[in-house]
Amino acid sequence: MDAKIDYLLRQGDNALILSQQLCQLCGKGPALEEDMALSNVALDLLGQTRMWLSYAAELEGQGRDEDRLAFLRDSGEYRNCILLEQPNGSYADVVMRQFLFDAWHYFLMDGLTRSSDPRIVEIAAKSLKEVTYHLRRSGDLVVRLGDGTATSHAMMQTALDDLWMYSGEMFLYDAVDEAMVAEGVAPAVGPLREAYLNHLADIFTEATLTMPSPDAWMQRGGKQGRHSERLGFILAEMQFLQRAYPGAAW
Amino acid sequence: MDAKIDYLLRQGDNALILSQQLCQLCGKGPALEEDMALSNVALDLLGQTRMWLSYAAELEGQGRDEDRLAFLRDSGEYRNCILLEQPNGSYADVVMRQFLFDAWHYFLMDGLTRSSDPRIVEIAAKSLKEVTYHLRRSGDLVVRLGDGTATSHAMMQTALDDLWMYSGEMFLYDAVDEAMVAEGVAPAVGPLREAYLNHLADIFTEATLTMPSPDAWMQRGGKQGRHSERLGFILAEMQFLQRAYPGAAW
Repeated sequence: MDAKIDYLLRQGDNALILSQQLCQLCGKGPALEEDMALSNVALDLLGQTRMWLSYAAELEGQGRDEDRLAFLRDSGEYRNCILLEQPNGSYADVVMRQFLFDAWHYFLMDGLTRSSDPRIVEIAAKSLKEVTYHLRRSGDLVVRLGDGTATSHAMMQTALDDLWMYSGEMFLYDAVDEAMVAEGVAPAVGPLREAYLNHLADIFTEATLTMPSPDAWMQRGGKQGRHSERLGFILAEMQFLQRAYPGAAW
Repeated sequence: MDAKIDYLLRQGDNALILSQQLCQLCGKGPALEEDMALSNVALDLLGQTRMWLSYAAELEGQGRDEDRLAFLRDSGEYRNCILLEQPNGSYADVVMRQFLFDAWHYFLMDGLTRSSDPRIVEIAAKSLKEVTYHLRRSGDLVVRLGDGTATSHAMMQTALDDLWMYSGEMFLYDAVDEAMVAEGVAPAVGPLREAYLNHLADIFTEATLTMPSPDAWMQRGGKQGRHSERLGFILAEMQFLQRAYPGAAW
């Protein structure tokens, strides 16, 4: 597959899978404000998905559109990082997963606004406005809950420890990522990872949380289509309507 | 729809949905013996499903087979009682749901061995052997956990109280049930309900559990295709393979 198409699918799939997981929390947030915020983030991510997958479908030129890419690929064709398919779990897990993603998402979108591909610059610039808010929100929550009660602190530390091994895949560049860097499409991994880890260190310090080692062993595979069993269940639910009623439209 | 086809779908769908729910517990039982027992019950029910739905498909005569009926109907066409689509929840919920179903299932299969339809007699007789074991097992567990520790007793009482309102639908006969009774296909509701309630009273007394009133208000609708949202999620997962890969066979 063309490296750029793959790269676009990765962006779209990250946003899509996280959006789907957040949608499952709709009406279940721990407070009304939180519930609305979660749903808004989910909608932002869905809008971003549409932009990434539309562009991927255009480049592919095989008559598929963003809906076909979203609803008719099976899990082995999905390119999201496995961080995003981790279960919603407790609210601490939800917040921590979001923060670990948002921080990377923010610095990546910022880097992509300087891409050699003008269409990517456009999508990244639109996304960056939303992601800036996402990161501020999830960072604030990490601080409030980490530096909160003994219970909330313990839950956030556990969530961080549990999710940490999924926070490295974004920085494990493979041939696709390297090709995009070489073409000036994507930012180099070094400065991106440094900015990410610095931001995490700042927030975790303020949150009184112990940051695990950046050199810890990290899970990988999602970007290449090797997913946990859980993605299959997420897709089964997400794709039911299009699978059961092919071609259904509003 | 022909009343007998509908009646057969109800039997098959009850067994199928409970089987699917038990399959989700495979590998998650609280003890190895329990885990194997749950999976065996699930397999028994799946075998029974196949017999009921095959017969329904034959009577329908529209070229559908039991697989098409199981995997390509949407929730509004499903005829299972809503008891069976209640969430697995805690192990107390699993055991109580099973017992409330098994007791009815046992007396119904027993009644159906005297059906005017020889094919139904055959299916019921085969099922009755398995269901006799299911009922003995779930009744034993209700007694052991109800008359167990303070915690297990409390959990079983809560499960009973929560699930009670779903235990009446089987005895709310509608036009389909009445037509089957009139044709001598199905047993009358009166003696069936009496045998059920007597058995429950015996087991709950031994289990030191308080049996709620048989005259309590009862949920209904599943037999007529009006289901909880949850059935949609169960079907999405169960039907994914056939929806994504239509016509797939071993």
